[in-house]
Amino acid sequence: MAHYGAKVVVPIDLKKKPWEQKHPLHNRWHPDIPVVAEVKDGEVFRVEMVDFSGGGITSDYSAEDVKHADQSIKKPWEQALPLHNRWHPEIPPVAHVKVSEVFRVEMVDWTGSVIKDDDSAADVKFIDLSTVHYLSGPIRVVDKKETPAMPGDLLAVEICNLGPLPGDEWGYTATFDRENGGGFLTDHFPCATKAIWYFEGIYAYSPHIPGVRFPGLTHPGIIGTAPSMELLNIWNEREREVEENGHKSLKLCEVLHSRPLANLPSTKGCHLGKIKKGTAEWEKIAKEAARTIPGRENGGNCDIKNLSRGSKIYLPVFVEGANLSTGDMHFSQGDGEVSFCGAIEMSGFLELKCEIIRGGMKEYLTPMGPTPLHVNPIFEIGPVEPRFSEWLVFEGISVDESGRQHFLDASVAYKRAVLNAIDYLSKFGYSKEQVYLLLSCCPCEGRISGIVDAPNAVATLAIPTAIFDQDIRPKAGKVPIGPRLVRKPDVLRCSYDGNLPTTKNPAASM
Amino acid sequence: MAHYGAKVVVPIDLKKKPWEQKHPLHNRWHPDIPVVAEVKDGEVFRVEMVDFSGGGITSDYSAEDVKHADQSIKKPWEQALPLHNRWHPEIPPVAHVKVSEVFRVEMVDWTGSVIKDDDSAADVKFIDLSTVHYLSGPIRVVDKKETPAMPGDLLAVEICNLGPLPGDEWGYTATFDRENGGGFLTDHFPCATKAIWYFEGIYAYSPHIPGVRFPGLTHPGIIGTAPSMELLNIWNEREREVEENGHKSLKLCEVLHSRPLANLPSTKGCHLGKIKKGTAEWEKIAKEAARTIPGRENGGNCDIKNLSRGSKIYLPVFVEGANLSTGDMHFSQGDGEVSFCGAIEMSGFLELKCEIIRGGMKEYLTPMGPTPLHVNPIFEIGPVEPRFSEWLVFEGISVDESGRQHFLDASVAYKRAVLNAIDYLSKFGYSKEQVYLLLSCCPCEGRISGIVDAPNAVATLAIPTAIFDQDIRPKAGKVPIGPRLVRKPDVLRCSYDGNLPTTKNPAASM
Amino acid sequence: MAHYGAKVVVPIDLKKKPWEQKHPLHNRWHPDIPVVAEVKDGEVFRVEMVDFSGGGITSDYSAEDVKHADQSIKKPWEQALPLHNRWHPEIPPVAHVKVSEVFRVEMVDWTGSVIKDDDSAADVKFIDLSTVHYLSGPIRVVDKKETPAMPGDLLAVEICNLGPLPGDEWGYTATFDRENGGGFLTDHFPCATKAIWYFEGIYAYSPHIPGVRFPGLTHPGIIGTAPSMELLNIWNEREREVEENGHKSLKLCEVLHSRPLANLPSTKGCHLGKIKKGTAEWEKIAKEAARTIPGRENGGNCDIKNLSRGSKIYLPVFVEGANLSTGDMHFSQGDGEVSFCGAIEMSGFLELKCEIIRGGMKEYLTPMGPTPLHVNPIFEIGPVEPRFSEWLVFEGISVDESGRQHFLDASVAYKRAVLNAIDYLSKFGYSKEQVYLLLSCCPCEGRISGIVDAPNAVATLAIPTAIFDQDIRPKAGKVPIGPRLVRKPDVLRCSYDGNLPTTKNPAASM
Amino acid sequence: MAHYGAKVVVPIDLKKKPWEQKHPLHNRWHPDIPVVAEVKDGEVFRVEMVDFSGGGITSDYSAEDVKHADQSIKKPWEQALPLHNRWHPEIPPVAHVKVSEVFRVEMVDWTGSVIKDDDSAADVKFIDLSTVHYLSGPIRVVDKKETPAMPGDLLAVEICNLGPLPGDEWGYTATFDRENGGGFLTDHFPCATKAIWYFEGIYAYSPHIPGVRFPGLTHPGIIGTAPSMELLNIWNEREREVEENGHKSLKLCEVLHSRPLANLPSTKGCHLGKIKKGTAEWEKIAKEAARTIPGRENGGNCDIKNLSRGSKIYLPVFVEGANLSTGDMHFSQGDGEVSFCGAIEMSGFLELKCEIIRGGMKEYLTPMGPTPLHVNPIFEIGPVEPRFSEWLVFEGISVDESGRQHFLDASVAYKRAVLNAIDYLSKFGYSKEQVYLLLSCCPCEGRISGIVDAPNAVATLAIPTAIFDQDIRPKAGKVPIGPRLVRKPDVLRCSYDGNLPTTKNPAASM
Repeated sequence: MAHYGAKVVVPIDLKKKPWEQKHPLHNRWHPDIPVVAEVKDGEVFRVEMVDFSGGGITSDYSAEDVKHADQSIKKPWEQALPLHNRWHPEIPPVAHVKVSEVFRVEMVDWTGSVIKDDDSAADVKFIDLSTVHYLSGPIRVVDKKETPAMPGDLLAVEICNLGPLPGDEWGYTATFDRENGGGFLTDHFPCATKAIWYFEGIYAYSPHIPGVRFPGLTHPGIIGTAPSMELLNIWNEREREVEENGHKSLKLCEVLHSRPLANLPSTKGCHLGKIKKGTAEWEKIAKEAARTIPGRENGGNCDIKNLSRGSKIYLPVFVEGANLSTGDMHFSQGDGEVSFCGAIEMSGFLELKCEIIRGGMKEYLTPMGPTPLHVNPIFEIGPVEPRFSEWLVFEGISVDESGRQHFLDASVAYKRAVLNAIDYLSKFGYSKEQVYLLLSCCPCEGRISGIVDAPNAVATLAIPTAIFDQDIRPKAGKVPIGPRLVRKPDVLRCSYDGNLPTTKNPAASM
Repeated sequence: MAHYGAKVVVPIDLKKKPWEQKHPLHNRWHPDIPVVAEVKDGEVFRVEMVDFSGGGITSDYSAEDVKHADQSIKKPWEQALPLHNRWHPEIPPVAHVKVSEVFRVEMVDWTGSVIKDDDSAADVKFIDLSTVHYLSGPIRVVDKKETPAMPGDLLAVEICNLGPLPGDEWGYTATFDRENGGGFLTDHFPCATKAIWYFEGIYAYSPHIPGVRFPGLTHPGIIGTAPSMELLNIWNEREREVEENGHKSLKLCEVLHSRPLANLPSTKGCHLGKIKKGTAEWEKIAKEAARTIPGRENGGNCDIKNLSRGSKIYLPVFVEGANLSTGDMHFSQGDGEVSFCGAIEMSGFLELKCEIIRGGMKEYLTPMGPTPLHVNPIFEIGPVEPRFSEWLVFEGISVDESGRQHFLDASVAYKRAVLNAIDYLSKFGYSKEQVYLLLSCCPCEGRISGIVDAPNAVATLAIPTAIFDQDIRPKAGKVPIGPRLVRKPDVLRCSYDGNLPTTKNPAASM
Repeated sequence: MAHYGAKVVVPIDLKKKPWEQKHPLHNRWHPDIPVVAEVKDGEVFRVEMVDFSGGGITSDYSAEDVKHADQSIKKPWEQALPLHNRWHPEIPPVAHVKVSEVFRVEMVDWTGSVIKDDDSAADVKFIDLSTVHYLSGPIRVVDKKETPAMPGDLLAVEICNLGPLPGDEWGYTATFDRENGGGFLTDHFPCATKAIWYFEGIYAYSPHIPGVRFPGLTHPGIIGTAPSMELLNIWNEREREVEENGHKSLKLCEVLHSRPLANLPSTKGCHLGKIKKGTAEWEKIAKEAARTIPGRENGGNCDIKNLSRGSKIYLPVFVEGANLSTGDMHFSQGDGEVSFCGAIEMSGFLELKCEIIRGGMKEYLTPMGPTPLHVNPIFEIGPVEPRFSEWLVFEGISVDESGRQHFLDASVAYKRAVLNAIDYLSKFGYSKEQVYLLLSCCPCEGRISGIVDAPNAVATLAIPTAIFDQDIRPKAGKVPIGPRLVRKPDVLRCSYDGNLPTTKNPAASM
Repeated sequence: MAHYGAKVVVPIDLKKKPWEQKHPLHNRWHPDIPVVAEVKDGEVFRVEMVDFSGGGITSDYSAEDVKHADQSIKKPWEQALPLHNRWHPEIPPVAHVKVSEVFRVEMVDWTGSVIKDDDSAADVKFIDLSTVHYLSGPIRVVDKKETPAMPGDLLAVEICNLGPLPGDEWGYTATFDRENGGGFLTDHFPCATKAIWYFEGIYAYSPHIPGVRFPGLTHPGIIGTAPSMELLNIWNEREREVEENGHKSLKLCEVLHSRPLANLPSTKGCHLGKIKKGTAEWEKIAKEAARTIPGRENGGNCDIKNLSRGSKIYLPVFVEGANLSTGDMHFSQGDGEVSFCGAIEMSGFLELKCEIIRGGMKEYLTPMGPTPLHVNPIFEIGPVEPRFSEWLVFEGISVDESGRQHFLDASVAYKRAVLNAIDYLSKFGYSKEQVYLLLSCCPCEGRISGIVDAPNAVATLAIPTAIFDQDIRPKAGKVPIGPRLVRKPDVLRCSYDGNLPTTKNPAASM
């Protein structure tokens, strides 16, 4: 095996343990450890190595360890303006702003600092997801005459600027354990994994996914207005229906193994800003308040990766004052945010400016459901985005891994496109877990290319090639051996201890 | 109603017939027709008008009329190199090319000139869809030593150039009748409609959709290799399953009313290139050969709108010589091609260059299903695309028009995003049918923004604002009255005579 | 005169004084001031107005006033790490950094806070230009083994991030008085003028140039390494020659009336960082040290407007440690920075990361003059730039305003292109001074289009049309009257009291 | 010397003659020629080779040879609509068009097929430049009522489409001999050179400049209206002045050694379309008619490289009917077109559409000289351009190669920037002549970055890195040896036989 003609003095076989290698590795310094190879003066040679842990050894932290982790960071509920993690019309505003004034909102990461910059994915595996997402707000918006935004208005929110919180320039991307959150491909990747990213100005790089570096298209994952009680009831009802009956009626459940099907209101983990925990008011609201996981009519967790500097969001107003909340800042995200904890998640700040378009809901939004509340926000994309020139595109069709044909199902098609991309990129020296996290957080584009050519939906995933330090395009001849890097160390990873079946594709040998 | 201060001398009420207008219209020239208004010298005034047919009068052509239409154009099967409209390993090549040489392929439009540049949508309504798509090829590809591409190879096809056929610089966009083809929104728009586009170099404009003009991102809708018999059997089997049992098992069928669920092999309308109709060989192949409607493992009808000049397509090879076929040229298409006959469909040419990557299927593609044949092509996007700066983005979530919650269903979410966009743009003077066709063929982007936030998938549709001659962004205050144009004439349109129920959204008043 | 049909109740004639208007204006509130017009309830009407001073009245501050202006801001020489405003090998470093570490440099605006956010251009008119530019540094760069960068190395400086200093989010653009600094078009615009810009995140807007708003392409105007003594001598000698003999020998002097021809070393206004003023060392260095006005072999004032986030600069190293200095932060600048004080000048910060390429000067740079020191830096442009789609382009050829033909002179051609653009845009409601400042600081591109077609060089100036709130493209018919805004108020402006002749172009009536 | 570990069996020393090489080369086939090296089965080895002529041997064609070259191609004056190569109001139109109609103009290359696709640069060396550029037209433009465009109008010309002539898909880039045309760097590169380019759809590649391939930004070098007699007189007078007195008065002449300083009217080589050669009318017009070399008030040879598909040109009208002419089609060009015959020159076609803006000269253009005719056209850039992401930027300042300081001279600065780029790229395996031609025709951008920082103008040249098949950015360590290719064969080249001095820069050793 030629590596640019270099002599290989310490070859590594990644399927073997450190002590099983041809030249067994050592983890102490001592003069008596025998020499494994000799090189001549001036000779170019190659040494291969495993990661510090010996390669692929998963961490063995327990849930108990995580609970005892560093408690020094101020908790979301300890902030001067307490955060909230539910949608409800009665969560009181913590601030108010006038139209046209630029104001700053700071936010914790979506988990409220539960996920740490450390060397284990245990915090991801054992996270209590009833507490996410921590949102900053609500913010009451009034016009120049102090008249608040009113139901039926449209709230135009311009993102003048945003970024990480100074002094906290890092983030993480993760997949949850199949039995605690999962992700788009949880049947293929049931383990909790984590990669840490550090920021160098506009760029992010990860010690866990070497060989990539890219500029962030930073955006808030969540921005939304408070729902009215009527809208909240609609949400709770339709989501309860899916949670209770979906398993029987929905084919897609079998392909997307993510569970639960919906996240219904829960008092567990609930934070309601200025409303004191334990009061009757708290109890009532906590039982009704919607979880923040899905995007809905009020905006919310829309995860539109291009909502960066200069973007404008037109949100429907359902309650007096609009009660704008925002959170879940992403340094960067790929379309779909496939690994679920899938952007480069971080704390951050927004500089915003609001306008009120009086009566704008009726003027500009058309309900697409049974009530006038069944509307969706509109967005304008800002003019400052990283400029990529070359894209490699993977395609999927709506045939699942078992070969079963689905009818125009873009979700199935997209799943296959992402799987195709993961396997392809793993040929260039990455573990599949590295690629899964990478495609979740890098600025890749997920498209619905064809949605009418029955029975196949065609979805595509376009990846900017410039984020890699090697040329990842197909070449005549094989994938180059020389630059084929074993991307060590790997992502942080826990074991999967559950009993749910997982999906293997025929080529999943590597 | 002020229109830039201009006096309106002939107002039109679009809900009234020509003879019911305040100033009844006339359709003859005669000195005795009375004057309806007077203007002074130098005065700016406004005249409103209906389209030539009196507005909204649908055409009353019959299927019989269409059959007797112009027969002068050479039919696909009359071409020197006869075309084919099925996928089968035994359709013989009509030409062969060597790697590295640039060659030219010309093609008819996908219907083989059935759709005309005329003033009726009747051709669309009564089209025999068993005949589409007409493909040019198959082309056998050999290397410099004349060794053909072999199963297991990867065929890299570069699109060096493409465009309309000189002298035939026009195209059309259409929706099929709900009972003959349908489309993504066929329950909302059950009528056959048609818009003609003319090309001015890089630009297209339509007399049926005034006020827009855009540069084409021209591409072939279909490019693919011939399947092996084994792969063909897989297709036929899985599609038969969906066609036969899908209605019972697939929830999505109820939301996407498009029928049939799959298009199985049919001898009706079948053309097999050099194989003579009526022979035993023809009968056998016609019964087995796959329809060209869906994209599949061999590429085929992938409808990736960015596959324009400079793009490269890496196709798996399943039969000796690869047997490359291509067709369905699109002057421009939006992601999803929502109206089904949805791009700007045209005849055209391709200049292509092939390379063979020996053994490339194994090297670069990973099967994602039960057999090694369950792979998908890879694409590289070319460097010459129209440059758009501002985008208006519409969002949809996976809640359907009845308010029912679906689980992470990107197709439902995209349907809602498109519906939102159509209603929004109809506020700016367009009919909804105009917008439906426009969003199907203009360079808009359909994205899967969030696919993990259960239960809502979030899909977005981004529209480049520069294609409109008015500012379509939301403004404080109402949609401007002054520039609010009634976009007359409308698309060509037939009546819907069927009995299937249609979907109305609450705001569908206009 | 129709303005969208609105009744004009207070017309303004801009050539008349406030008291000469048809409806004389008032500048006091009193019940007895007579009514000039009546409007009905619901009627749209138009009121025209002059600026607060009555239009065109220049400020009458004296130089004395400016000297007594606010002294509360910390001066450049009072900073913890004192700034410097000259290039010299012996200015001692104020900090040192290692390669690969990201570090932050903060800087004052180039004048050290002399130019104020106030309502007069007097500070511009009377500025002491011997003090500019204030630079932060020098910074000594060492490798991981603490070995400093050495002469002959190449210093690669990556701009990881940059921006305004928090709390100081404003800037200014100005032209100097013809007798104190001038500018590219000083013969046309001899007065000192000033416009203030405020930042809303990525956007800048100016109360003095209404109707434009654009995202900044923020960059440092100056970044460079310290010269060696040998290089410094070369500079001083060649610039003295031009200063002393240029007027006789250089034709271009007659066209570009900017004076002086060069800025030679001066003890006046000199600041040398840690070197104490008044010491013998200071006296010696101050007499030798090069002014910072021109860009030179060490980089310096290169004013490359695209050197924004993610850019990389490869600077030659002339002294041990490289002694990197930077300053003159620009929120935005047009190619050429034509008004001289021409970017949006501001204070700011940089986050930088250095690498040393040992021996890189010889490896990568080729001297283009008599000594090995006659080299220039190389740059890589970062990937995050505002995205503009439409450009309006003005052309100039090397024929000057008197009609005289010059030989392939790109500077003359560019002067004419800029003059063309100014006159054109002034038709859309701007004063020429507003456009002059705008083209100096907005992200417009100045190109050398043709440099070989004797005798005419062709230069072009491309302006992104999206920065305007009106459509500035030529239209059939006249410049629209309706949206033709009188852009009041105007830039701040002083009178020109000198005696030098000025250039008028034939159409300079407006 | 390691080349990816490959054994080098035939090393080449480029400074030696073929027969002086370590393994002398042979130029005949014969069994007795001795073996110079042996390789084993399966071994990777490297053979280096010179070009077909033995390296650096210049061609020895004479002017006589060129005259006798292939005469079979139809000459410009033999075309059905005869071409012209001068500007004059009395050259009669050969066609007329109405506004709004799309029409097609075909054109020969600028030399009228004198430059051949052959293996010698002799045609370039001995070309008779009195005959260029051959233009198609004039075309008379009328409005819908057949009223012609009139002096004072503005003619808006939209480029709907353009491209090479089918069947003639090739072009050339060349530098002229220092004594017959020269170029921007003629003192550095006095020899005539030529590179042939072939087109693969949107891409061009050259056998003479290996290792680059790029998409064309195709445009007409010349588009303009006929001058009035008054304007023509202004041109002739001012250019005569420069031609006669420029050498004494213009410093820039010493730096830009290109001669003559201007090209005055000449009957030699003159073609006037429909006007018969030899008639009195012909003699009169030929003596007055302006050469087409420089761009002027009528547009003409503006060489704006971005005037591609979708662009719009607003030309002043000086004579009845406008008399539009166009020619000099470029497949691609860099800003400045530095080598003079510097674009990829080709024959081609334009599809154009005209509008007339009545009175538009006064409305939109402002004279910048002594008469109302001293105006310049305006341009809008089209939306379809190749997308490049990474740029490497070279800088020059207005200090010439002798070290002399010039005052704000952008031409001198740009000369230095181009010289810097040539020397830099020559380190990557190219001859300097290859780079000179490449930078002249590839889509590089020439900017005036700073024009106010006396005494140095700063000009920059930005090169898209994606056009190269190797990474040309500076790297820590040396320019990589492994991929350092000797780009053989070189450009076609003649010897320089003249006596004029040439400029050497200190590093011109390679």
